Amino acid sequence: MRSFLLAITLLAAPSATLAGSAEDIEAVITGQQAAWNEGDIDAFMTGYWNSEDLRFASGGDVTTGWAETLARYHARYDTPEKMGRLEFTDLDIDLLGEDAATAFGRWTVVREGDDPTGLFTLIFRRIDGDWVIVHDHTSAAD
Amino acid sequence: MRSFLLAITLLAAPSATLAGSAEDIEAVITGQQAAWNEGDIDAFMTGYWNSEDLRFASGGDVTTGWAETLARYHARYDTPEKMGRLEFTDLDIDLLGEDAATAFGRWTVVREGDDPTGLFTLIFRRIDGDWVIVHDHTSAAD
Repeated sequence: MRSFLLAITLLAAPSATLAGSAEDIEAVITGQQAAWNEGDIDAFMTGYWNSEDLRFASGGDVTTGWAETLARYHARYDTPEKMGRLEFTDLDIDLLGEDAATAFGRWTVVREGDDPTGLFTLIFRRIDGDWVIVHDHTSAAD
Repeated sequence: MRSFLLAITLLAAPSATLAGSAEDIEAVITGQQAAWNEGDIDAFMTGYWNSEDLRFASGGDVTTGWAETLARYHARYDTPEKMGRLEFTDLDIDLLGEDAATAFGRWTVVREGDDPTGLFTLIFRRIDGDWVIVHDHTSAAD
């Protein structure tokens, strides 16, 4: 009986589902960009897995946990001037299975004084039906 | 008939197979470390997918292709002194499916003058039976 159920689950996942997953993941990322550009870090953070196991790697530092990652963003971007305008470009989403995917791209913050830029690798999992970032590795250009 | 075959494939993949995959992935990474510490960049590179689609992201730069990534390593580490001694620590491997996994950890190069350190996120795929790195995102501490 179990093998029968497994087979049905797989056969019921047509390519349309995978295409829909990529669209859902892209929507999370563009939603983050929109939230940032409205100055709403809390809404930006809804793209991340709300878990103590969320991992955020930047440069040589690792932040673990959703609340800790939120606090890091609030501390580093505590004014609209520092937040600037966030742009994600060169987005490349790879589905690794029904419930796992990666997204790679470039981030740029356009603001007065400097325009920092760099790259991000995101690992997405579908948890309770929603695609969320469980791991974010971000780097900045020198 | 197809559903029957799919079910058999899944049921024939016990947790022992997943544990074996994690061991295989760890062996790729420790093999890279050993090759580096023998001064053998070409052997180090065998851990990567030998493809024009290999992606190597570092800081704000993206290198695409196995040959280009090899050339980058040779250019940046053209003496034993620059290569120093490579150490990988805090390794965390996550299997995302039968043929996809991520590995996260810290790299440190111990050498005369400085000991640069940072983080890496690797995306592994099992291609033609072998686990290889298809995407490497590396960052350095400030």
